[in-house]
Amino acid sequence: MNTPRLPKHLLSPKARRATDPLIAWLLRMPLEDPQIISLAAGFVDQQSLPVEEVAECAKELFSSNEGKSSLQYGTTPGYLPLREDLCRMFESQGVSKRISPDDIVLTGGSQQLLHLVTDVLINEGDIVLVEDPTYYVYTGTLQAAGAKVVGVALDENGIIPDALDEKLRSLSKSAGIKKLKLVYLMTYFQNPTGATLTWERKQKVYEILTKYCDLGRTTFVIEDAAYRELQFEGDAIQYLKSLDTENRSVVLLGSFSKSFSPGLRVGFGWLPPQLLVHVMRQKGSEDFGSSHFCQHLIHRAIASGRYSRHVRMLKALYRQKANLMLKSVAERFPNGAEVIKPRGGMFVWASLPGVNTGFKSSLFKEALKRKVLYVPGEFCYCREPRIRKPVNKMRLTFGMVPEQNIIEGMRRLGEAVQKVLS
Amino acid sequence: MNTPRLPKHLLSPKARRATDPLIAWLLRMPLEDPQIISLAAGFVDQQSLPVEEVAECAKELFSSNEGKSSLQYGTTPGYLPLREDLCRMFESQGVSKRISPDDIVLTGGSQQLLHLVTDVLINEGDIVLVEDPTYYVYTGTLQAAGAKVVGVALDENGIIPDALDEKLRSLSKSAGIKKLKLVYLMTYFQNPTGATLTWERKQKVYEILTKYCDLGRTTFVIEDAAYRELQFEGDAIQYLKSLDTENRSVVLLGSFSKSFSPGLRVGFGWLPPQLLVHVMRQKGSEDFGSSHFCQHLIHRAIASGRYSRHVRMLKALYRQKANLMLKSVAERFPNGAEVIKPRGGMFVWASLPGVNTGFKSSLFKEALKRKVLYVPGEFCYCREPRIRKPVNKMRLTFGMVPEQNIIEGMRRLGEAVQKVLS
Repeated sequence: MNTPRLPKHLLSPKARRATDPLIAWLLRMPLEDPQIISLAAGFVDQQSLPVEEVAECAKELFSSNEGKSSLQYGTTPGYLPLREDLCRMFESQGVSKRISPDDIVLTGGSQQLLHLVTDVLINEGDIVLVEDPTYYVYTGTLQAAGAKVVGVALDENGIIPDALDEKLRSLSKSAGIKKLKLVYLMTYFQNPTGATLTWERKQKVYEILTKYCDLGRTTFVIEDAAYRELQFEGDAIQYLKSLDTENRSVVLLGSFSKSFSPGLRVGFGWLPPQLLVHVMRQKGSEDFGSSHFCQHLIHRAIASGRYSRHVRMLKALYRQKANLMLKSVAERFPNGAEVIKPRGGMFVWASLPGVNTGFKSSLFKEALKRKVLYVPGEFCYCREPRIRKPVNKMRLTFGMVPEQNIIEGMRRLGEAVQKVLS
Repeated sequence: MNTPRLPKHLLSPKARRATDPLIAWLLRMPLEDPQIISLAAGFVDQQSLPVEEVAECAKELFSSNEGKSSLQYGTTPGYLPLREDLCRMFESQGVSKRISPDDIVLTGGSQQLLHLVTDVLINEGDIVLVEDPTYYVYTGTLQAAGAKVVGVALDENGIIPDALDEKLRSLSKSAGIKKLKLVYLMTYFQNPTGATLTWERKQKVYEILTKYCDLGRTTFVIEDAAYRELQFEGDAIQYLKSLDTENRSVVLLGSFSKSFSPGLRVGFGWLPPQLLVHVMRQKGSEDFGSSHFCQHLIHRAIASGRYSRHVRMLKALYRQKANLMLKSVAERFPNGAEVIKPRGGMFVWASLPGVNTGFKSSLFKEALKRKVLYVPGEFCYCREPRIRKPVNKMRLTFGMVPEQNIIEGMRRLGEAVQKVLS
């Protein structure tokens, strides 16, 4: 790319540290060649987007008294009735304490809340613990903010308590614990692995964090539940947030992007008040609040029951697509290939026996030749030079991919794997 | 307020520097007491919000092929057809060079673009020149970013070239010129004064900037044209941006908030590519792009002609309200009171003879007693301790205020002034 750039010394420290991730290139490719089947992009299913539902909500809104005010400026925390809906939603999901809408903020997707919390808390050299592998967009945000990102291993049941304990113990010894600002956990159908943190582990994890950290003061936990609504198998699992009975230490964040529509860009957070005050100030200075109109639409979708009907439909759809992808992986990948079976969300994490999946690997080249894309596992691991990371993993997504393309994409990918193995 | 806060040393430098402006309190008051007439809030006229227009655009959108994709993720720069609309709009407004939609970014209001440019460029101690008085929300953003905000006097024709020349000359002597990152100018119906930078002055200002600054490298100019569409008097004046024929030095920013609907939160910027690349990276990391759906609606409003019809109607409405406010000021304020007569926008800047308008002044107290609010001029001047600023100014807005409240609000305010003078 020949885009001119400013010399680094003229940029802010954050802009100096920011990079264009390779992944951006990867996600742009299918736009340039429609023959490509992307099992890489984390977009949501296109056909099921709630056109009728939003159309009806808009119609209702515009024939109500609220039509005009939805087009006026809102407030920085966002439309109160939607924040009240969220309180009821959390309560119906088993969070027992009374929740105040004053503790909720509506954002431009949950990504904006990740950015805001990071921007408010991180000083250069601060430490952030994340599951390893984790959501690579956020590690980019963290690195640009100057944080040192430290990975803790996870398995199909989420972050491994013993690994967390060990990491925190070693941080305590080195006084690094005082620089530990955030612990970032995707507790449901994690990106990229699809792993879910079990309730038993949540309790252990919270206990360990309490043991080592000054929670709610020096260290906060982010529970990223962006995919939670898309659970298509098993019983619902309580939020980690429900262990934070005083609303002191855990930032719970979620989104209507996956469960309804990413085009409306409505995410939300439930934050401890001593952190929220700073986040709100920052948000006010950045945008005065997100689209009031979109917040009204989501509120109408919830109040009318359209939202929950839509989510029910989506769950059935994603279950079906997940099963199809798992079946295709079993058929197309060689013996010894393994997957984490997701209970929700849109990702399947696959391990290939003795095959390097990296961006510069033969497999990636062979896949590209056959016009199929996946996310190389290496993009999702923290960059910790002294620690060896697996090189045989990949993230496959069934979110946006139509069923016939899951089948055809996995056929092509299976062929690429065979080619490399032969 | 008893909101708990985190101790400063645990916050990022930006969050440490951020403050809650008094103005926030001022703007919240009318929400708490509906008897209050606020001539302070910079909201847009409520009755004229384009409910029918947006309803029709939504209906068309949802019965088109684009309905679904409008609810999917968009791209970080934003919906291409809307960026193309903007290119045509700039061209129709007399910017002669060919404009590429690749140089345009759509944001969550123009405020987000101010934030992004600041976040990308400002290091602690960098200097930003602004008109004095200026848009106080942005000076807050700048101060939180660690910038030193330096004011240059303006009159009814915008920033004063001689004052700019003098300030730049003194910066050149002190080598401060190397730290001059941004020059922020509101060129149309400035907030708070309503002043408009004439074409003659634009040419002089650009010449002076070129003489002293390494434009497009060390120093960028922000031309904030957020109110430009609301011109209700006189001939259109070319953008300062049109002097930047190579698209190297001027960030032009605008918004559909004032001219259509703030609830949709769609702003835009036309940026030099060497700066845009960093802004886009930052925006991608913050929110992946603003609401795709709202961008589709605005595009439909423009393509269908509804947008330009709406703007025509708004101009007539704002002209009428501006005239009413000017008439009320003349009637209610004592001899010697002066105003800058706005040619557009929503603000009237008034000077009272020998009356202190400050937040702690008798006048403000008397006004509050009579349930009428204005923005004390002192909030709008840069905080430069060694420079004396006028204390007898106030910003009045007719934007959101219904006509009968302009009359009644000015009656109350006139009474408060009489009381203080007597």
